[in-house]
Amino acid sequence: MKENKLRIIPLGGLQEIGKNMTVYEYKNEIIVVDCGLAFPEDELLGVDIVIADTTYLKQNTEKIKGLFVTHAHEDHIGAIPFFVKEFNVPVYSSKFSLGIIKSKLRGDKPEMIEISPGDRIKLGHFDVEVLRVNHSTPDAFAFAIRTPVGLVIQTGDFKIDHSPIDGKKMDLTRFAELGREGVALLLSDSTNAVKDGYTMSESLVGERFETIFRHENKSRIIIASFASNVHRIQQIINTAVRYGRKVAFAGKGMINTSKVAMTLGYLHAPENSIISVNDIDHYPDNELVVVTTGTQGEPLSALSRIANNEHKNVFIRTGDLVIFSSTAITGNERSVYTLINLLMRLGARVIYEALEEVHVSGHAKKEELKIMLSLTKPKYFMPVHGEFIHLDRHREIAMNLGIPDENIFVMENGSVLELTKKAARIAESVEAGRIFIDGRGTSDIDTTVIRERKYLSEDGLLVISMGVAKDNGEVVTSPQITTRGFLFPIDHDEAKEEIKIKIEEELMRYSPKSSRDTHHLRIFLKESVQNMVYKRFRKSPMVIVLTVEVDFGDE
Amino acid sequence: MKENKLRIIPLGGLQEIGKNMTVYEYKNEIIVVDCGLAFPEDELLGVDIVIADTTYLKQNTEKIKGLFVTHAHEDHIGAIPFFVKEFNVPVYSSKFSLGIIKSKLRGDKPEMIEISPGDRIKLGHFDVEVLRVNHSTPDAFAFAIRTPVGLVIQTGDFKIDHSPIDGKKMDLTRFAELGREGVALLLSDSTNAVKDGYTMSESLVGERFETIFRHENKSRIIIASFASNVHRIQQIINTAVRYGRKVAFAGKGMINTSKVAMTLGYLHAPENSIISVNDIDHYPDNELVVVTTGTQGEPLSALSRIANNEHKNVFIRTGDLVIFSSTAITGNERSVYTLINLLMRLGARVIYEALEEVHVSGHAKKEELKIMLSLTKPKYFMPVHGEFIHLDRHREIAMNLGIPDENIFVMENGSVLELTKKAARIAESVEAGRIFIDGRGTSDIDTTVIRERKYLSEDGLLVISMGVAKDNGEVVTSPQITTRGFLFPIDHDEAKEEIKIKIEEELMRYSPKSSRDTHHLRIFLKESVQNMVYKRFRKSPMVIVLTVEVDFGDE
Repeated sequence: MKENKLRIIPLGGLQEIGKNMTVYEYKNEIIVVDCGLAFPEDELLGVDIVIADTTYLKQNTEKIKGLFVTHAHEDHIGAIPFFVKEFNVPVYSSKFSLGIIKSKLRGDKPEMIEISPGDRIKLGHFDVEVLRVNHSTPDAFAFAIRTPVGLVIQTGDFKIDHSPIDGKKMDLTRFAELGREGVALLLSDSTNAVKDGYTMSESLVGERFETIFRHENKSRIIIASFASNVHRIQQIINTAVRYGRKVAFAGKGMINTSKVAMTLGYLHAPENSIISVNDIDHYPDNELVVVTTGTQGEPLSALSRIANNEHKNVFIRTGDLVIFSSTAITGNERSVYTLINLLMRLGARVIYEALEEVHVSGHAKKEELKIMLSLTKPKYFMPVHGEFIHLDRHREIAMNLGIPDENIFVMENGSVLELTKKAARIAESVEAGRIFIDGRGTSDIDTTVIRERKYLSEDGLLVISMGVAKDNGEVVTSPQITTRGFLFPIDHDEAKEEIKIKIEEELMRYSPKSSRDTHHLRIFLKESVQNMVYKRFRKSPMVIVLTVEVDFGDE
Repeated sequence: MKENKLRIIPLGGLQEIGKNMTVYEYKNEIIVVDCGLAFPEDELLGVDIVIADTTYLKQNTEKIKGLFVTHAHEDHIGAIPFFVKEFNVPVYSSKFSLGIIKSKLRGDKPEMIEISPGDRIKLGHFDVEVLRVNHSTPDAFAFAIRTPVGLVIQTGDFKIDHSPIDGKKMDLTRFAELGREGVALLLSDSTNAVKDGYTMSESLVGERFETIFRHENKSRIIIASFASNVHRIQQIINTAVRYGRKVAFAGKGMINTSKVAMTLGYLHAPENSIISVNDIDHYPDNELVVVTTGTQGEPLSALSRIANNEHKNVFIRTGDLVIFSSTAITGNERSVYTLINLLMRLGARVIYEALEEVHVSGHAKKEELKIMLSLTKPKYFMPVHGEFIHLDRHREIAMNLGIPDENIFVMENGSVLELTKKAARIAESVEAGRIFIDGRGTSDIDTTVIRERKYLSEDGLLVISMGVAKDNGEVVTSPQITTRGFLFPIDHDEAKEEIKIKIEEELMRYSPKSSRDTHHLRIFLKESVQNMVYKRFRKSPMVIVLTVEVDFGDE
């Protein structure tokens, strides 16, 4: 008799940062937790975003009962616009998260079901309890998923904040109760597992803003923050109001999120304290705070436009104070430094770096991760959300707390953990991987295309075009050379002439029997020109040979 | 009567990291200090290295008396192979630096003059005194340049190490004497001007190695380091020998530098303590240390090949200990993390990050910079080596020590500081900028080429080719579409068909008078196809229209 099994399948978020997505499958039922995107590494040329391959879900569409969303960050919700095109299932999350998700959907409107801490949602064999955690965006949840084989807790992104801005503390007591009840498996956030100690409270940043605002009685203040960090923005508004400054939002994401947050009651501002960025010139410098996107140096962000003197409204003046209330995500350091240099060259003073305590992380560090493990006391443990180094350090932490190594599963996307009442084991993997989204369409691009872009980006392009007779394949025009993104180390015309001579030489050896031979002509010309250009000029452009077939009629 | 002036012209190293080069000009005499390269940012697609534009030197070739080199790091010597092709002047530096420079030159052999601390080299009106400083490579120098208008000190890269590995301390006393004598202008290293405190002694790293080696009695140890950090390598050898391990070098740079350093007596190893990396399999794991390049995650480095299981000799086994005795240079963090993840997935344990004290910087932090300023007491001050943020922080440090703001010059490459006996002022700038080196040739590439590569790298390429009659410009073949690095969001053939229909439509509106009209044909087809592809597919590939002119003879 086949034993009843719960299959836990991470489709994203393991051994990478971003595109978090976990599938829970029991018999004919599936629930999905989160559906995020990842930002492409630099070598993924032209790729806008990366989402998880959902082939496995497509093969099991009829089983899917619902999508549960822990919180409204892009790495947890960013692929929902693609998901809802494929799967027609209800989306469960907080009022705030659903508000943000709605603002990102065009056309497709899935059923959206608002849930709150303490709620229990029963879908077939699944019974999902909603738990409050703290994070750098409002109403972040963990889920306690009761199944016939046991209780699974997925933390989502979390930190333990004893003085959160909205007063809504993480429900540590409930985690403890569940731990006493017996947790079969814990999936916990590994983002900060390499970092010692505790993550500071968001309130600390407010204190720091207070000090800065108190001393700035002449200058404009411009603060860059993550748009989704509503509590950070609340603290900026609070401080601004206390010091008689108006707040203007810059950047699409900031304007959109603050609007959603205000409408839904997550962000509070006294009347007339918020002004349009179009109106900032009507206020003196010391009565103004501009809150902007662009903390990662994204080229199209408001802060980037400001730093390049290309923003419609905000022009940096000597003495302006710019605060990066953020930290650079690994890989963005160069872009952030470039922004800082540009801003300083325009005359701004810039506050940056952890030293200044103008930012705290949203993720639990080692000591908090230990508390989560100690409260929930899971039998099995799967570190999630992070690169290998993060997952591995989280594994070490769990081992130090007494969880045996064989009960800890450092997995890959597509790996399947099978959980029964008695045991857990890795089963055969399912299809998983990365889908590259390029442009506004929903197309996916494959690695050949990326390879071609990479090739083109390094030494550019050299096109050879010529006419051939349709009937006998003879070359009937002199070859023409066109280059892009490519430069010869010698005079351009001279170099082209050398290549032409090479081609003419090669063509002497070419005796076509019919026009079908042009295929061979293209291949052998391509190779010989490539070799010649490398040998002569030490360059390797992409070489394309185009033959245009000309019909000379009966002649 | 025209006053005698010294012109100080930084051609590189200001408001950037790398390609350090400073010109000193007095009447008909020029000396140059350092001649480095910079590594290109990611957006400089296909560029290998960046060097300074030396147009100004070319305009004054006959004035140049010599090149003085502070130390043998790429950002101070990397452009010398290009410099010596243009300028035939003697190169002055330490035995070690000259050894490294020689190993990089092919063919061109300039006169090389070995200099030592205490030496004074008189070239025309210049009198250059050599001063010892500490840095992360052997025999680093500062120069005290006596001129008719006063004494100028250029520090080069430096730190103050009271317990350097080679026992050669920085000559603080001499700096103090020069300060008493009267320093008109100080040019000082700003690399670490944003960092509080002191840079630790290189000896500290040795202590840390000692602790690690003592505890590792089973595993292989692989240490990544900068090849030029000879003292670091010396400490590895010393520790390895104490614990009965042989040392093997991996990576071209590491093998080359250690060879030069051993030959010249800068690196010492007992007989038989160094083995070839080809022989490592003959030794048990606990009798082996591999010292490798690749601390920045460079794709072709030995460590990168090791992490990708592509190295000829070194294959990671479970338990191997990999130590990054280095820090990631801003912009390389992502690549370094990728390497670490790969190594861990292969089973290695990895030690990284400042926490572990397996690396110290080679550059003076704030407190050391203050000591330099306090000892030399310059009248004027020019912070050098660094981005704007570094130069600006160094300016702040100097102001806090009492140098008036108007005596501090935060300059740009190409700016000219004119120094007389009485005053210093910024004069008209000279030509300066970046030369991009691409490929092994000495070609420079311009920004158009980079822009084209960028364009190609984002959405790829779409080529339309067709034949036109030479005599009347009529289109005589059906247009052909070729793409690279580009993917349609719908079926490829279908999309091509749509574009062909569009082209046919456009061609209906085209009535050529002669073959000279093909130029207009190309332009208007390009625009209309570009628009159509964007509107229909939301993609912007580079569109190239090629017409092949066919001669139909008299007919």
